[in-house]
Amino acid sequence: METRRAEAFSDAVFAVAITVLVFGLLPIGVGPRVGPELLHAWPEYLAYVVSFLTIGIMWLNHHALMGSLRIVNRSLLVINLLLLMGVVAVPWPTTLVADHLNGPAAAGGRAATILYGVVLFVVLLAYTVMWFYIGRNAAKIARDPDRPPTRLKSAAFMVGLGGYAVGTVVALFSPGAAVAIYGLVAVYYLFEHQPAAVATTDPVADSPRHPES
Amino acid sequence: METRRAEAFSDAVFAVAITVLVFGLLPIGVGPRVGPELLHAWPEYLAYVVSFLTIGIMWLNHHALMGSLRIVNRSLLVINLLLLMGVVAVPWPTTLVADHLNGPAAAGGRAATILYGVVLFVVLLAYTVMWFYIGRNAAKIARDPDRPPTRLKSAAFMVGLGGYAVGTVVALFSPGAAVAIYGLVAVYYLFEHQPAAVATTDPVADSPRHPES
Amino acid sequence: METRRAEAFSDAVFAVAITVLVFGLLPIGVGPRVGPELLHAWPEYLAYVVSFLTIGIMWLNHHALMGSLRIVNRSLLVINLLLLMGVVAVPWPTTLVADHLNGPAAAGGRAATILYGVVLFVVLLAYTVMWFYIGRNAAKIARDPDRPPTRLKSAAFMVGLGGYAVGTVVALFSPGAAVAIYGLVAVYYLFEHQPAAVATTDPVADSPRHPES
Amino acid sequence: METRRAEAFSDAVFAVAITVLVFGLLPIGVGPRVGPELLHAWPEYLAYVVSFLTIGIMWLNHHALMGSLRIVNRSLLVINLLLLMGVVAVPWPTTLVADHLNGPAAAGGRAATILYGVVLFVVLLAYTVMWFYIGRNAAKIARDPDRPPTRLKSAAFMVGLGGYAVGTVVALFSPGAAVAIYGLVAVYYLFEHQPAAVATTDPVADSPRHPES
Repeated sequence: METRRAEAFSDAVFAVAITVLVFGLLPIGVGPRVGPELLHAWPEYLAYVVSFLTIGIMWLNHHALMGSLRIVNRSLLVINLLLLMGVVAVPWPTTLVADHLNGPAAAGGRAATILYGVVLFVVLLAYTVMWFYIGRNAAKIARDPDRPPTRLKSAAFMVGLGGYAVGTVVALFSPGAAVAIYGLVAVYYLFEHQPAAVATTDPVADSPRHPES
Repeated sequence: METRRAEAFSDAVFAVAITVLVFGLLPIGVGPRVGPELLHAWPEYLAYVVSFLTIGIMWLNHHALMGSLRIVNRSLLVINLLLLMGVVAVPWPTTLVADHLNGPAAAGGRAATILYGVVLFVVLLAYTVMWFYIGRNAAKIARDPDRPPTRLKSAAFMVGLGGYAVGTVVALFSPGAAVAIYGLVAVYYLFEHQPAAVATTDPVADSPRHPES
Repeated sequence: METRRAEAFSDAVFAVAITVLVFGLLPIGVGPRVGPELLHAWPEYLAYVVSFLTIGIMWLNHHALMGSLRIVNRSLLVINLLLLMGVVAVPWPTTLVADHLNGPAAAGGRAATILYGVVLFVVLLAYTVMWFYIGRNAAKIARDPDRPPTRLKSAAFMVGLGGYAVGTVVALFSPGAAVAIYGLVAVYYLFEHQPAAVATTDPVADSPRHPES
Repeated sequence: METRRAEAFSDAVFAVAITVLVFGLLPIGVGPRVGPELLHAWPEYLAYVVSFLTIGIMWLNHHALMGSLRIVNRSLLVINLLLLMGVVAVPWPTTLVADHLNGPAAAGGRAATILYGVVLFVVLLAYTVMWFYIGRNAAKIARDPDRPPTRLKSAAFMVGLGGYAVGTVVALFSPGAAVAIYGLVAVYYLFEHQPAAVATTDPVADSPRHPES
């Protein structure tokens, strides 16, 4: 099965999931005192930005992983489905964290930030499974079996899995510190480049570098 | 009419429908006691997972069916529209089932699980109609008239139609047992491969197997 | 500008707009007595089906119109934007009509069905403008200037414009009769074929018929 | 990395964001007196039209910018993500402005129109950053390095940035005048053509004009 339609479906799911985040912003300012309400809603803005970047970067990496493939098989599509199941859920803990980060509802902040960490950890786990699967089946499905996506720095997965695991544990004691960790993971991914996988999908940039073969 | 844009539209509809499922999760934890609320909402998680997999697998099979076509005509597009009309409705019975599976609202569980079975049965019926239509018109619209999608194991359709029909009847007596049946159907489809249709859309895997011609 | 990305954007807008219709179904059955509520909600189901088919058929015709083009220019993209502005609004009068078709809220049915007719009339007006624009600029933008989409039976536009205009006026006296007219227009379009435009986009079916040139 | 999938994701995000605007219309007319409520909701209609055109034109210009590229790199994708983060937020200030433009809630109009200006200014800022980035890296990423998108009239960016900045300041004194300015910016963009960028993406129109090289 060609990768085109699997990419199109995944792109659309990522796009809708990232846009659902706006539903966390929509209720801000509907109260009687618009100005003060807008000024005090900074946890909502923070949660929006962190989750938007997180889903956006997930899309970038999904892009790189899928771009390294020649064909997809049903197993990979099922793994992809499990991954998307996590991505689509992200707006849910995002809203909960934003609602309970400060103010009278802060008592729920611990549960909310734990949930955020668990959901994101599960998403990253699905990525790792997909990454291992592609590495193991590179001969059958990769675009260039000699340069499979396992060349992706595995450090990137470790930082993500570790970051969300640590954040989830930290959330037990300090929801605010956990949110800081989640934000740092997003910033890390924002600046973390995956040159191998990106190069593979770019035929033009590819050719001049080929002396390594 | 080429299949590309019909696929693009269907992909987007499936993607939005599957993402709408997150609106069933969004209200969980907005109450005063976040932690206990999250722990007791397992029917919502179960419903989310079952419906996500169900819509996702429907997309996979839609993919396989459309991938076997060379062109689409207006009749097929209308059948496709009826199919999508059912797919888009899936988040509705999903939310109802989740809300009435236990707790004080359990009295409505019977009606909710019957509705779930009826909606899913209708969707599968639309699939069956599409499948028969393609089989009958293979000479005109199939990519490879000698290997039309009627090669798809018809057992797959029987399991689905039968599963949802039985589940709907069982729901009259035990909503919980009906949900178990719906979950089993999803699991069945998750592991049910449709090699013929998939192979048809994959030019690379196709060639070596061609000795059958 | 090539037509591909304009089609992709339009496809996605149509797909999201058609899926937003499910938000009209979501509240059905959340009350204490699920079964009776589901049975009495037939106006919601009727509105869902009529609007789903209506948007779906609009997509089909949009498909045919865009498929007849070789390139799009900025004017056409702006007309397309106005068309989409109407399409996206369709779930709004749909919900209103469904809520006020019977029961204690029936007093609002007149305003709701008038709104439905006005919104759909505006959408069809945008289609007609697009159709005239393509006809006038066929030499520059059509894929095959000798067989421009003006070959589309103009009757189709007349039925739609007339149907929604008559329905809007009838709604002043009988909301139920207006809904019947709107449903009939949807059914008409469901069976109305536009062979010229469809053939133009299908290179395979095109060649054998070409003796007419 | 090829531009195709970045365009597909952006298209879908724009499409969902523009469709989310309908959620501002959905509550109109749900009260007991449908007709009068529909007639008095003109600020909602105005906000819907202005924001729909604004997002739509942003899509058009995004289209032109991306269409001038041969490949995208990770930096550009991150800038694109920041741009989309702003676009997705647009329905939020739109709803707030519409809700507080007149009637008993007009006291919040000042904060709402300031927010609208700030969000749109940030979106235009992201566009300007993207535009400068493409101009600086034209040799590496542009489709035709001799005719980079910096040829886009920079006046267009100035009008937008200036319009939203002025509108935000005017909003401090008169929310109504600010809305008029936002509407004028949308109308300006509706008629502002960007021939250079558009021509670059159109291979057919390109060739005859090439004597300028």
